[in-house]
Amino acid sequence: MDYAKGILPELDVARVSREISSFIENSLIESNAQGLVVGLSGGLDSSVTAKLCTEVVNTHKILGLIMPSQSTNKEDIKDAINLADSLGIKYKTIHIDPLIELVLGVCTRSPDDEKYQMASANLKARMRMLILYFHANAMNRLVVGTGNRTELLVGYFTKYGDGGVDILPIGALYKTDVRRVAKHLKIPENIINKDPTAGLWPGQTDEDDLGIKYPLLDEILYLITQKGMEEEEISKKLRISLDEVVKVKLMVMSAEHKLKMPPMPPIVR
Amino acid sequence: MDYAKGILPELDVARVSREISSFIENSLIESNAQGLVVGLSGGLDSSVTAKLCTEVVNTHKILGLIMPSQSTNKEDIKDAINLADSLGIKYKTIHIDPLIELVLGVCTRSPDDEKYQMASANLKARMRMLILYFHANAMNRLVVGTGNRTELLVGYFTKYGDGGVDILPIGALYKTDVRRVAKHLKIPENIINKDPTAGLWPGQTDEDDLGIKYPLLDEILYLITQKGMEEEEISKKLRISLDEVVKVKLMVMSAEHKLKMPPMPPIVR
Repeated sequence: MDYAKGILPELDVARVSREISSFIENSLIESNAQGLVVGLSGGLDSSVTAKLCTEVVNTHKILGLIMPSQSTNKEDIKDAINLADSLGIKYKTIHIDPLIELVLGVCTRSPDDEKYQMASANLKARMRMLILYFHANAMNRLVVGTGNRTELLVGYFTKYGDGGVDILPIGALYKTDVRRVAKHLKIPENIINKDPTAGLWPGQTDEDDLGIKYPLLDEILYLITQKGMEEEEISKKLRISLDEVVKVKLMVMSAEHKLKMPPMPPIVR
Repeated sequence: MDYAKGILPELDVARVSREISSFIENSLIESNAQGLVVGLSGGLDSSVTAKLCTEVVNTHKILGLIMPSQSTNKEDIKDAINLADSLGIKYKTIHIDPLIELVLGVCTRSPDDEKYQMASANLKARMRMLILYFHANAMNRLVVGTGNRTELLVGYFTKYGDGGVDILPIGALYKTDVRRVAKHLKIPENIINKDPTAGLWPGQTDEDDLGIKYPLLDEILYLITQKGMEEEEISKKLRISLDEVVKVKLMVMSAEHKLKMPPMPPIVR
């Protein structure tokens, strides 16, 4: 099946890269922070984000944290280290399994296996946030998020985990766009071409989790959120089943609470 | 000095309590969650919040988590347990020090002592969030926040720590209002009368940290945020120094980023 329908408009990758780097620079100035901390997974998003940071911020002000668990692919750790080395930024590797084990040990085991697995996966993402912020707070730095627009819109991130960051440099770029920017930035081919994964359990891939390929998902999201098109219209335009469009629409709707501050009741005196 | 200037209007505590409980009930229904998880510190905010939860949600659907550290007052733990018992909700006590120690052990020690202390204090708040969410995810429940309007406005909370919650039932109530509601709800006197503390280090009190007493702080915040009054006018009205008003205004301004989703650069195609 051919997903490359050219729905998502081309991107001026050079201009966009400059705009994102300016945003990073301005965030640093406005917050009076003295540097950046970024989690490096060896994947596309964190590699692009780290590279964009180095375009404007002195490399000695950037710390990369590599936080593998037992489900992390060894290749990914190597790619993250190589990236940090090639960018010339300091990095530190912290294995999170001992921390996760200790927390699991004091928490009640759920009778529901599926929910317990999900809770444990979210726990990993939150533990990484904890570690990123400890370093950021201790050094008066900002935590740089690596989430992209696709993940944010469908809620494919952990609330207060990888979603818990100070700035989102690539937060307005679809996954397809991140790949385009990565090519422009000359991110290593093996990073650009690997299957995207949240790395929360062995063999996990984003596209399996989401039940849809990124190129198609991005086109549907673009038509829903930026063209305001109805489900039926999208289904016809992309020549896919209505069910597929509705599924994406539902993901977007149930993700909304993750993109807002916690609600509170209005109090009228 | 007399702070009770009657600036903050009276509150219809019975109506407000009902409105907050309805909000909790509706949040539960709308999210399809099957219950609530709330952190209990033995302090005013968490006691009021827990009590308001029990007004509308079956007690077996509410879990209280008591998460003391070495800096937690023993009295507070006892008050939290007594409250849970009197409300008839299940509770669990998890000591966070071993978890904190392990994380500190793998993180780089900062050369800046003050920043290291602050980073460690924030780490505690974030560890509690981690534990609350693990239970909530494993049981398909909501994490109920206990932050009040005063803390939120001046940023007296940890981003993605105690600030990392699903709903904020008392988030629109000033600390003064929480106390008023507490009396209506017949929260035990010793809880109402104890010095508010974030409990992040021994002997900590909110009012020492903030450098101002809650009744006055609430009046200043009310005049700034709900009456739109200028600093000079407030200083005259409350017969306090302009410096004091400016100090609060600055706290509010530097807290703004904690009350918003992480910013991202706009991408125009």
